[in-house]
Amino acid sequence: MNHEQLFNLIKKKQSFLCVGLDSDLNKIPAFLLNEEDPLFAFNKAIVDATLPFTVAYKPNLAFYEAAGVKGWQSLQKTVEYIRSLNQPVFLIADAKRGDIGNTSAMYAKTFFETMDFDAVTLSPYMGLDTVSPFLQYPDKWSVLLALTSNQSATDFQYFEERTGKKLFEQVLETSKTWADKNRLMYVVGATKAEALTGIRKIVPEHFLLVPGVGAQGGSLSEVARYGMNRQCGLLVNSSRGIIYASKDNDFAEAAGEKARMMQLEMAELLNNIV
Amino acid sequence: MNHEQLFNLIKKKQSFLCVGLDSDLNKIPAFLLNEEDPLFAFNKAIVDATLPFTVAYKPNLAFYEAAGVKGWQSLQKTVEYIRSLNQPVFLIADAKRGDIGNTSAMYAKTFFETMDFDAVTLSPYMGLDTVSPFLQYPDKWSVLLALTSNQSATDFQYFEERTGKKLFEQVLETSKTWADKNRLMYVVGATKAEALTGIRKIVPEHFLLVPGVGAQGGSLSEVARYGMNRQCGLLVNSSRGIIYASKDNDFAEAAGEKARMMQLEMAELLNNIV
Repeated sequence: MNHEQLFNLIKKKQSFLCVGLDSDLNKIPAFLLNEEDPLFAFNKAIVDATLPFTVAYKPNLAFYEAAGVKGWQSLQKTVEYIRSLNQPVFLIADAKRGDIGNTSAMYAKTFFETMDFDAVTLSPYMGLDTVSPFLQYPDKWSVLLALTSNQSATDFQYFEERTGKKLFEQVLETSKTWADKNRLMYVVGATKAEALTGIRKIVPEHFLLVPGVGAQGGSLSEVARYGMNRQCGLLVNSSRGIIYASKDNDFAEAAGEKARMMQLEMAELLNNIV
Repeated sequence: MNHEQLFNLIKKKQSFLCVGLDSDLNKIPAFLLNEEDPLFAFNKAIVDATLPFTVAYKPNLAFYEAAGVKGWQSLQKTVEYIRSLNQPVFLIADAKRGDIGNTSAMYAKTFFETMDFDAVTLSPYMGLDTVSPFLQYPDKWSVLLALTSNQSATDFQYFEERTGKKLFEQVLETSKTWADKNRLMYVVGATKAEALTGIRKIVPEHFLLVPGVGAQGGSLSEVARYGMNRQCGLLVNSSRGIIYASKDNDFAEAAGEKARMMQLEMAELLNNIV
């Protein structure tokens, strides 16, 4: 999927919602634990209920790896199930990988060949060597951490050069020379909405993947106000707020309803540009 | 394993060698592909041949993930096999993970509970939140990327503050307040041996995990000269130079011989301190 196709999908669905599949055996409804593959059963129900309202899914790798081999099976089945629905949807592996050379090439193979993801989140610390193997795949994306939503993001991301330029700004400036808006997007936390104006000056056209709305306290309207561009340029992620909306029999229905409410709010915000 | 136990192991084996298990289906001897689990068969033979000469193993997660569920099975079996030998050895998951909060906690669970690793490599970009869940485990270690061995390490790790302090130095200064030498070590590439003097001024006591000797061109004697402290303070990793020493029937024997040669060189270098 390229930039134009992603924007078309957003226009068609009137949504720039990404549902984070942070699926945790300790948090999914207890009755699902009787299923042969509880994580997959949970994800399948969540996807079925939310797909009309979302343009992207973002499984968080940690939650699957923590279950070992079984977790990887659940993840692979989830990706295959979503692809089997034959509906365009953007799949992000939230892996925050960051390695180099042939190791990085192996990670690219994992997410773009072994599994059919569209995009992978990557840490910029080791520089271009981390990203370049991922950029070899046409219509696949690297999602580089820029300014994250967590409290200790400031430990190093705000490290400041003589000119006042901060590390996350340097990451944006340097990396945007590596690939255009069809291959590269950035993670910017919703809790840092006030920084979006400055970020848009550096990367006016790239998509931003924005976590932190909902449970972490970020505001959707603030994010849209400061971060939206004329091709939307935003994928706003919600994980816990949607997938754990209910822990009872109606968990999927409740998740669908939460996703629908966000989609309605997003349709309003999209009115400003399309 | 704590700092003292690791140093005792180094003294006993007269080695500070870490063997990197970057085990790649495309590079292991072709006849192993007939085995039920080729990656595990390869690793088992390499471990059997090298264990007398090494104090640590470092499987590189990317190589296992690229094989999907089967790769994770190979990895888990490798860890279980090494532990079944009942010999003290330090196991590092070279995962370069970097996430936060409950996600980071899930990664810690993966490597310290689901699998019995001693240590995990972590990227510092997101700050303390990335590391703190790993620090909750007694006698387990976080290995933070500081100055890496790759060419584009300079893209951001050399980003420089007003005072001339570089990002990697800030990472060392800040993170050493998070945990002492029993819980934290740092990745410093052997190709950056000249930087070790400065690094030792900031973290005189912490262990450094040093990749890049051999295939990447770093020199063992240079690393020891600038990086060794009175408790050794070094784990020097070699991957391809050992595990792919031969691609024929004698691959394990050749790997053992390469490891033995490095151990002999290390014993010489350890003479300076013990």
